[in-house]
This record gives sequence, structure tokens and C-alpha cells, in this order.
Amino acid sequence: MTEPAKREDSGLPEAVTAIRPEVAAFKPYAPGLSIDEIKERYGLSQVVKMASNENPLGTSPLVQQTLRTHADLAFRYVQSGNPRLVSAIARSFGVAAESVVTGNGSDEVIDLIIRVKARPGKHNIVAFNPCFSMYELQTRFCGVEFRQVPLRADFSFDYDAFVGAADADTAVAFITTPDNPSGYCPPVEEIIDLARRLPSSCLLVVDEAYMDFADDPAAHSVLPHLTEFPNVAVLRTFSKSYGLAGLRLGFGVMHPALADYVKRVRLPFSINILAEYAGIAALQDTTFHAQTLRVTREGRTYLTGALTEAGCTVYPSAANFIMFALPENCPHDARAVFEALLRRGIIIRPLSSYNLPQCLRVSIGNRHENELFIAQFKELLRG
Amino acid sequence: MTEPAKREDSGLPEAVTAIRPEVAAFKPYAPGLSIDEIKERYGLSQVVKMASNENPLGTSPLVQQTLRTHADLAFRYVQSGNPRLVSAIARSFGVAAESVVTGNGSDEVIDLIIRVKARPGKHNIVAFNPCFSMYELQTRFCGVEFRQVPLRADFSFDYDAFVGAADADTAVAFITTPDNPSGYCPPVEEIIDLARRLPSSCLLVVDEAYMDFADDPAAHSVLPHLTEFPNVAVLRTFSKSYGLAGLRLGFGVMHPALADYVKRVRLPFSINILAEYAGIAALQDTTFHAQTLRVTREGRTYLTGALTEAGCTVYPSAANFIMFALPENCPHDARAVFEALLRRGIIIRPLSSYNLPQCLRVSIGNRHENELFIAQFKELLRG
Repeated sequence: MTEPAKREDSGLPEAVTAIRPEVAAFKPYAPGLSIDEIKERYGLSQVVKMASNENPLGTSPLVQQTLRTHADLAFRYVQSGNPRLVSAIARSFGVAAESVVTGNGSDEVIDLIIRVKARPGKHNIVAFNPCFSMYELQTRFCGVEFRQVPLRADFSFDYDAFVGAADADTAVAFITTPDNPSGYCPPVEEIIDLARRLPSSCLLVVDEAYMDFADDPAAHSVLPHLTEFPNVAVLRTFSKSYGLAGLRLGFGVMHPALADYVKRVRLPFSINILAEYAGIAALQDTTFHAQTLRVTREGRTYLTGALTEAGCTVYPSAANFIMFALPENCPHDARAVFEALLRRGIIIRPLSSYNLPQCLRVSIGNRHENELFIAQFKELLRG
Repeated sequence: MTEPAKREDSGLPEAVTAIRPEVAAFKPYAPGLSIDEIKERYGLSQVVKMASNENPLGTSPLVQQTLRTHADLAFRYVQSGNPRLVSAIARSFGVAAESVVTGNGSDEVIDLIIRVKARPGKHNIVAFNPCFSMYELQTRFCGVEFRQVPLRADFSFDYDAFVGAADADTAVAFITTPDNPSGYCPPVEEIIDLARRLPSSCLLVVDEAYMDFADDPAAHSVLPHLTEFPNVAVLRTFSKSYGLAGLRLGFGVMHPALADYVKRVRLPFSINILAEYAGIAALQDTTFHAQTLRVTREGRTYLTGALTEAGCTVYPSAANFIMFALPENCPHDARAVFEALLRRGIIIRPLSSYNLPQCLRVSIGNRHENELFIAQFKELLRG
């Protein structure tokens, strides 16, 4: 009890050095460069960011106006449970309010679902490989086994292998559709079939962060089918088509009995009061949302065509980004192309963190950004 | 593997019903009333909220201006790790940037510290009783044993009992100073002595959410002593004296080796981009901050005097709230007084959730709010 706080052998007390083994396995945090730092490092006056799947039109005018109007409310705690926002989401997406769980980004909902469902040392969680890094990181942080099933070579889903990886101890299975980073988007019938085949213990979480951008969301989204499939939860986000990435707002739709448990354990004030106002406004600004979808789909067609024409292998995308591999005769590898574009003021996404070092991902920008990217990219390929 | 998703016996698949036992022990979420709902229910045109320890002056003008200026950036992800904000905090509080961990409210830092340090089924966490509910909720959510040591009858800290409750498996000990809900604030020497006495395995987390409001923070805060005590971490928040409760911004200061681990596992974008701008502006608006402290200290003196004069037992507070018990001859109990004030448009805080049903807590408001509360309260006592 009265052991001194400093131990002479290590120099630091156990209070600092003794951490959970799962945590010690995480890589140290490496900060990325800001746009300003990139400008300074490469002597650029302008930088175009096509790396994080942000909205090509920026922030909705109605959202901006709402944020300005309510800036004086920053000192107030948000109403716990976000009932106004939940009602607005329920109305806009045609789901029951009791089935909606809001989160500080869908990242928080991912974390909560894992923590509610999966018992460390007992359960496992299944996902494809590659997949959105949060599924793996939050699972490992919880001390839960993470099982990954390779995507097929064309980045389509190998359902037999996926179902084969699940067992009676599979608490959660994650899939992303449209998928990140490939943009692959299966018909909804395949997701429904998967939901039928998984063990009854397993909650299938379908992350539809990019679903709005599909040409025909009704043919791909499982959201309208949730009442038939209580073992399925859907994640949606305000970060992409609603243009609120910086405000951290996402939500899950799931069976009310499960939503009830998630709501019991979440931090009572995880959502920013201005994010709540902004989310409601973003749902109201249907003009901005429709324009975002139109610009994104047009940009997708343009970029797919231009990259194909330049000799790249372009993976068909239903999302607001495109994954591609360089032409076989390209004088540079993907990393070199990423860095050369960075020096020219265009940030795209290398995919080594997805274990796809030969591929690049470009977020669809506005027309000017897309054309600038293609012009610079073509120039690079020539030299 | 091909078990059907719906089981006929329960009506719902295990995917919904099978949740971690720790989660099932949590109470269902019960939403509170919003100010608008209170107005409607009681037919009030104005409601004064003195329940959540929010800033009596509202939101700093500089913060409001900053929020309005940067409303257009809502579509951008914040820079991971918040380096600009971390630098500003390090400068303002005179600590090393490497020791600062920002969070979506200090709630997130509490959750992360528990998850980094405490192994479920092995470790325990010690706190006083009553204490801030997040310590207990997040500990239980993690499946970690939570040990509580009663405060003394006068709400001062029984250090011998606290140290006695800790053992070699105590991963974290939480104390709040000034304490919530009592306002009790021990001299810093006592905290330092506690840090020396706890087992070397134990990280002492000192939650100084309300420290700014103490008359002489230097005599009470352990923050300037952290480099001498690597087994101590301090939590601070922007919710109170900086007036950003709704934006969710808090931080921990801890040994850089521990901070490194916490940063490895936190969600990369948990902090809102506007909260980051607002936090930096709030640190710059020293006039607003000083005025907040002055108004709060003046209000504390006034409310302490007026409640004492009305026959209440007032617990000495160093915070921006006051805990009190009703006079012995009071015709109503604390719950009835809370409800009667609510009907008159004044929200204060009943303390049954702290297991103190005989006590009430009132947040210090601005002069008008304080006087209104006292006038209404006195009227209630009379009849």
C-alpha cells in the first residue's frame, strides 16, 4: 500500500508503464500533415484535397447559416439522447425513432456495438480484408478476436468464405457497401442472403456510409428491409453526402431492443450541440444534398473515363471515391505518384494502410478539382 | 452456420438479445425534458437553467465570432491529433504538448484511461462515494470492478480509507477536486500525499473540471506538480469556465509515455473541427474567462450567504455550484422543492442520483438568475 510511486528500476511507476497488452500492440500515433503544412513544405499557394471523401461542394449554405445562428448556444449541454435529431433522422430515412442511435461519427456507434455485443476472450468479430480500419482497431482494443476473410481479386464479396469464418461465438460481422476503398456495391439481395446465412448469434452490421452515392440506392441498401431482419444493423453518416465530416455525426439503425442497450451505455453528451443543429439542417437542405449526388456521380463518370483512358485499371465505384491501379508501363509506383501529386498540391490517398500498395484512391472532387487532378496525373505519367 | 436468423422461441435472434452481462445491468435510458418541453408543460415563457454547471455568461463573444467565421469548414475532417489545439493548451496551462490528450469532453478521456489501464476480470478502480457518475459507468461498462469509499459526513476525503481500498490490482483511482456535487476542495498537499501513498500500479486521476473557480487554484491544483508525480493524471474541461459545454472538449494531462498509449487507441477524429477552433479562441479570450470567474465567485458568495440566511445547510464550495440541505423546519422535502422551482421556471439539480436525496445542487448563475432563484426559493420556504 505504501510502496513509493517511483520505482528505481524502471524510472517510471507501473501506473504509467502497466497498460493492457491489447493497447501495447497498437502502433504509436503518427500525425499527418495539415493542408497548411503541405503548402509550407512544398511552397504551394493552393492545395486540393481529394483524400478523405469529403463533400466536393463543401458545407451546405443552410448548415452554415444554422451554425452561425446557434453559435451562441455553445455553452449549453445538448439534450441527452438528441431527440430532435433522432426524430428528423427517423422522418428522413423512414425508420422508427426507437431504432436510431446517434453517435459522434459512426465511429462511435461501431465502438459501442462491439462493446455491447462482444465479450473479450469469448467472442469473435468477422470482416473482409481489407476493410475500414475502425472495425479492426475497436475490436482489438476490446480484446476481442478479429477474423478477416479476403475479398476476391476483383474486390467483390466472397460470401461463402465470410459465412464459413463465422461460428456460434461470432458476435458481430461488419461489411461496408459501397465498399471502401474499392467502391464495390453488391445488390441488396446478396446482403439479405448473407443475413439469412449467418449464425443467429451474429449481428450483421452493414456500413452504408457511401450508399447515397450509388446510382440506385434502392437496389443496394438494406435499410428499407431492416424490420424483416432484426439481426441486421445499418450505419449511416453525415460526413459524406451531407457534408458534415468535421462535425462528427453518424447513426446506426437497429432493432429497438438492441438500440435500447446501446443507448444505455453511450456517453450521455457525446454529440456536439452544433452538430445536432447542423444535422437537422443538412436533412432539410435537400437541394444541396441532391446537388452533391449529381456532382459526385458526374465526377465519377468523368474520372472513371479519364483514368481508364490513361491506361489505369479502374475499379467500378458506387461511392464518392475511385480506386485505381497504375498502367503497367507506368514509370512510377503508386507511392511515387502519390508523392509527386502532393508536390503539385493534390492530395490523394495511397492505400498501403489497406495493404494495397499498388493502388491509389481519389475522392471525387468538384469539376475544377477533377480536371486539375487528371491534368497533373497525365503529365506525371508522361514523365 | 446456416441456423435461421429468427428463432421461433424468443421471437428475436440472439444477434439482438445476446449482449454482454455488464451492459444488461445498466438502466434503460430515460430522456430528460428540454427547456422547451418544460416551458410547454408548465405554461412558462421563460426558464432559468441552474442545473448543469454551464457558464453563467453564456458563450464567449470571441468563440461565437470564431464559430461563425469557420462555419464553412464543417465539411472537413479535423486534423487528427488536434496539434494546433494541443499546442494552445500546452502554452496556456504551462505543460508539455506531449503530455496532453484531447477528448470529446473529458468523458472520453475518462473512458480511454480506463480502457488503456484496466484489464476486465483482473483490475479494480477506486473512487469516493458519491462521485461523478462517469467513473462508475465507464468502469462497469468495461467489466472492471469498481470500489467506492464513502466520503466523510462533511464531504471531505477519507484518505486512509481510500488508500485502504486500493491494492496491487488497482489500475486507476479517481478523485474530483473541487468535488462534485459538494464543492469540497482540499489543499494540494493532501492530493500529493495521496499520490505518494497509493500503490505504484495505480494511476491517480485528479479531475479538476471545476478548479478554475477556486479562489486560489495554485493552492489546490496538482497540475503544476505533475512532472514530479508521473503516477498522477489531471483532467480539465472547456465545458465550465470556458463556456463550451455543448461543443464537447476536454483534455487530460499525463506522463508522455501514458499519453502516447492513450493517443494510439482513441478514435482519430473524435473532436469536432469547430470545437477545436472554439477551444483555441476560448483560451485567447482571457477577458471572458476572467469575467466568468469573477461573476461565479461573486455569485457563490451571494448564494452561500442567502441560502445560509434562509436556514439551509450550505456546504462550502470552491466550484461553480453549491450543494445545500433544506432547513430542518422546511415544510417540503428536497424533491418537492426541486419540482416547485421547476413549475416556477427554475431548474436546479436534485441529488437522488448521487444518493443524496436530502440535498440539492444549484449552479451559480448570473446576478439576475441568482436573485430570481433566491426570491422564488424564499417564497417556497414560507409556504
